[in-house]
This record gives sequence, structure tokens and C-alpha cells, in this order.
Amino acid sequence: MKVSEIGEFGLIERLSRMADKSKDKTQEAWKQLIVGIGDDATAYLNDSSIQLATVDSLVQGIHFSLAYTSWKELGWKSLAVNLSDIAAMGGLPRYALVSLGLPGNTEVENVIALYRGMIELAKQFGVAVVGGDTVGSPVLFISITVLGSANNEKGGLLKRSAAKPGDEIAVTGHLGASAAGLEMLTKHLHFSVRDTAQLKNAHLKPYPRITEGRLLVESGVRCGMDISDGLIGDLTHICQESHVGALIDTNLVPISLPVKTCFGKRALEMVLTGGEDYELLFTTDKRVMSKIKKAIQCPVTVIGEITADKSNEVKLIDSHGKQVKIKKTGWDHFRIRT
Amino acid sequence: MKVSEIGEFGLIERLSRMADKSKDKTQEAWKQLIVGIGDDATAYLNDSSIQLATVDSLVQGIHFSLAYTSWKELGWKSLAVNLSDIAAMGGLPRYALVSLGLPGNTEVENVIALYRGMIELAKQFGVAVVGGDTVGSPVLFISITVLGSANNEKGGLLKRSAAKPGDEIAVTGHLGASAAGLEMLTKHLHFSVRDTAQLKNAHLKPYPRITEGRLLVESGVRCGMDISDGLIGDLTHICQESHVGALIDTNLVPISLPVKTCFGKRALEMVLTGGEDYELLFTTDKRVMSKIKKAIQCPVTVIGEITADKSNEVKLIDSHGKQVKIKKTGWDHFRIRT
Repeated sequence: MKVSEIGEFGLIERLSRMADKSKDKTQEAWKQLIVGIGDDATAYLNDSSIQLATVDSLVQGIHFSLAYTSWKELGWKSLAVNLSDIAAMGGLPRYALVSLGLPGNTEVENVIALYRGMIELAKQFGVAVVGGDTVGSPVLFISITVLGSANNEKGGLLKRSAAKPGDEIAVTGHLGASAAGLEMLTKHLHFSVRDTAQLKNAHLKPYPRITEGRLLVESGVRCGMDISDGLIGDLTHICQESHVGALIDTNLVPISLPVKTCFGKRALEMVLTGGEDYELLFTTDKRVMSKIKKAIQCPVTVIGEITADKSNEVKLIDSHGKQVKIKKTGWDHFRIRT
Repeated sequence: MKVSEIGEFGLIERLSRMADKSKDKTQEAWKQLIVGIGDDATAYLNDSSIQLATVDSLVQGIHFSLAYTSWKELGWKSLAVNLSDIAAMGGLPRYALVSLGLPGNTEVENVIALYRGMIELAKQFGVAVVGGDTVGSPVLFISITVLGSANNEKGGLLKRSAAKPGDEIAVTGHLGASAAGLEMLTKHLHFSVRDTAQLKNAHLKPYPRITEGRLLVESGVRCGMDISDGLIGDLTHICQESHVGALIDTNLVPISLPVKTCFGKRALEMVLTGGEDYELLFTTDKRVMSKIKKAIQCPVTVIGEITADKSNEVKLIDSHGKQVKIKKTGWDHFRIRT
């Protein structure tokens, strides 16, 4: 069987099971492990603090195209998606290790621009770029490891496995602009100067919600992740890991303004399945939710609630309570992006 | 200018300088950093312990060929080269995060075999495989991050920058078998069953010197690294980082037996420039060296000494004190391997 047949998540499931079976509770490393495969980052105890580690690779032709991405933007985005994984655990990023796969004919100036973009973002969060390696490769890829820590005193992490029936489901910011930006860039669509800039920026220079992730954890939220594969796909991960269901009122989902303006009826599909928004998706009880809405700077919108549904599915309804159907439900890395 | 023109080390130098310039000593991450770019792994202080992190990528066609490497061996080796980086700091590996770039037509069974090889090695050192990601890619690559720790009480790390004039230079084990194995495999050379097995194993299933690295640190050694690019190339890194020179008596360098048997006169070149032996190369004073020779299980051979030579070069002499010249001095990742 080919990996394209079982897809990214089918493969990850099998590999996770293997890694899980190799568990050896007599070993220090396994004893100290708090969160293993299946969440945004790995978490483990060290002395008295919780350490976080995450790695994400971006491959040319699969995750980005240099036809519409500058090297500097590529550097920014490669780091941003990893910082977002630390934000999605409610942690603080500290170090980045960068592994570059470069074709021999790559211009040195371009690699320097890539580093410039990465460092520009790193500085904003006090992240130190400290190591990695540089290897030859027929295709350009960037694999970044980010190490961080969680505030142990204020308690806990944002896990995918901590949703409870009755929890409200919320998202930070507005959704859909990254997917809309990708479509605009690949299909050479023309919109107003302002919409173009906003959509392009959303896709190429996402801003990780580090500050917001910390605030969620400190306010008492325990379930959350970042939206990288698309709202429905990602919420499905939460449902599966938490053994719950989810009910979303599609009318409540906050659509990014230029997506509405430029894509009209297709906006909802982009918002629900688009991915790469790098906003935070989280669940918590009403009391904590109302506390957060007052404390947080960015928009927070409640879009539905966690149910006890044993199918672990995400159900969509419109404002009349009628079921909404959509075409695709997430991003699979073994599908080549068009 | 193309990256192939300035080579791997030219590029790393430029990127390091950039990362270094971005240093911000008011930030926690930079304050706690002990070893940044330019050593085998990154080291930073956390609470009272030293944390280690390293990442290495292997790319099909550059670092390995599936024509003579089984998927299981590939899994073993991908992890081994990273564990070796932790050994080269004198640390203990704890966690591995695995990022796989897979063509869509990869057989699932093969990916599982790769994980099997990785887990087989991980178990031997109590390493937990805990996360990572799986992405589509036109070319197969494996990028592994290993996190570890150093024993802070028994003091210190094996750094590249700690060699002192007068230090003896030593290596663990015997050298050259990995390079000889590669040549045997790529050129379909035929040797005795025993030599074939030894050379193949040396190239495809290197065994990281974790135990030995720890023992070196605990005995008081402060300068060391693993031999991945070749003895001369790697010793040159030590000379440059420590601002010293090195004098090697080529007659003392321990040649792996099957390399002598199978490659005769070419054995010395393989030993000096071959790379991928993953033995430890270290320097220390005579007193510590004699202590180590008694304490350590594996062979330890003194091959020369550190000098005050300001050119930071490695000089080779034969048993008559005559200068020895060799053709190539290390492995550059932007050269495609034949």
C-alpha cells in the first residue's frame, strides 16, 4: 500500500502506534514524558519545568512556491508555523534549530534573505536561532525545530485531549484569509490593493498567537490547538483525542473581511476547510470563556459547543439549525497542492 | 553566487554570523545559551541542568541510496548520526522527533520498517521517539531532532572550542570502515564474507559512542566531537574553533582491519578523509588521557598533539617526521556523492 492511499493521518496513526508500543516505563525519558505524538508539540518534564519541542518541515512545490513567495517571506513563515505550534500548547518559544535542504545552484543571497525573514520574526518573541544543519538536496526544504517551555506554576498546557462535553468552542481572530490568499496567488486573481495586501500577508506572513496562547492557559483553558489544517479538520483532531463530538454554527464562524469581499459565496468553504490561518482553536467552560473575552486583546468568537457524541465528529448547522454539508475536510500532505 | 561555490562551510559561516548578530542579551533565551551554532549540538541552561538539542537531515541521493540501504538500516542510521552528535557533547539522549518527507508512492511497509530500525536503536539508549511530522516531498528525506541533557554535576561538555596547545589528540575505535563500506557498496566490490559484513555494517549501522562520550566528560575531557566529515576535516573544525593547530602522525591513526585488507594502499586516505565513522575525536592532557585509557572499554589511540600553530591547520607527518600530503580533506554536502 502506498502512503498516498492511507493519507497523512493514516500513516501518522500507524507510526504513533509503533512508537507507543516501544514505550518503556523503566526509562527516565518515558517517565518524564507529558505529551507525546498526536499534539501540537511534545512536552516533557525537566527538573521542575515543562519543556516543549516541535518540528515542522516545508517542502518546495508541496507547501510553498517561490513563484509567489519571496525568500524572506519563506523564512518568516517557516518559523511562524513552528512558533504557532508552541503557542498552541500555551508555551513560550526559546530556541530554533534550522535544517535546510538546498539545491547546489541556490543563490547564497536567497538563503541569507530566508534567514533574515526568520530572524526578524524570532526577535519579536525573544527566540534565539542557535543551530541546525545545511545539506544538499534536489528539492528545497526547510525543517525547523523550536524548543520552548510552559509556565509550570500557572499550570498546564493546551492539549488536544482535554475537551469536555458542554465546553464552548472558540477561535481567535478571523478565518479564511490564508486559503483565500493562496488561491489569489496561484490563480493570479485581481482584487483591490488593500484586499490583495491583506490576503497575501495572511498566507505568507502569519503571526503566531504566542501571547494569546499564554493568556488562555493562565486563564484556565486546557484544550486548544492552532488551525493549520483547516477548522473542521483540526476540530476533528480535538474530538478524536478528547473522545467527544462538536457542533458548530457556521453562521457564527468569524470570516475574514477580504475573504467575504473577494470570494462571496465561497467564503464559508474557505473558512471551514482552508487551513493555515494559525489562529487558536480552543474549548472551555462558559465562566472561563467570559473571563477570556475581557482579558484578551484579539477578537475571540464562540462558534459552537463540545457534545458527548460518540462518533467523534464535527457537525455543522446553519442559523436555522439545518445541517450544512461541505466538500472537503482538511489538508493532506500527500496531496500535491495546485 | 551559488551555494555550491562557497560550499557547506562557507554558507554555514555566513548564516552563523547573521544568527550571532541577532543576539539580544536582554532576552532569556540568549542569556541561557551555552553553546550555539558551530558545535555538534546546541546547549542551554534550564533550571539547573544543561539541555542539548541537535538536528540532522538525510536526503535520498545525497546521503544514502536505497539501492544498497534497507529501510530498516536507514531508520537506524538516521537516528544514529543524531545520537552521535549528543555523544559528541558528552551528553545523554532522551527524546527524538522525526520529520519525514515522503513521496506519495512510498510503500507504507517501508516507512514502518524505517521506524522499526529507528526504534531498535532508540531502545538501546532509553530514547523515546515522541513526535515530529510527516510531509509529502518529491524526494525522500529524514530530519531527526534529538534532545538530551548533560550531567551538570560532573561538569561540562565536550566542546570543539576547548583544545589547548600541548593536548594529546585521540580517537576511539578504528577508522575508515564506513568510507570503505560505501565504496564497496557503490562500486559492487567483492571481498570475503567477513570483511563484506564488517564494512557494510560500519557504513549502514554505525553505533553512537554515548557511553564513551559520558565517560570522557566525567574523566575531565573538555574538547571533543564525533567524526562525521572525516578525521582531517573534523579536526580542522576543532583547530578553527579553538584557535590552535594540530600535528598528526599518520602512522599512529588506527585503521580498521578490513580496510587494510581490502583497500591496501588506499586505506590511509579512507581513514583520514572518509568520514561517517562516528567515532569520537578528542583532546586532553597526558594525565587525563592515561586515566581514560584505563577506564574506557573501547580502544583509544593517541594520534598526535595540539600545537600553537596560528594557521589553525592540521599537519600530517609519517613515522620519519616527513610531511604527508593527501588529496581531499572532507565532505561537503553540496557535492553529490557518487
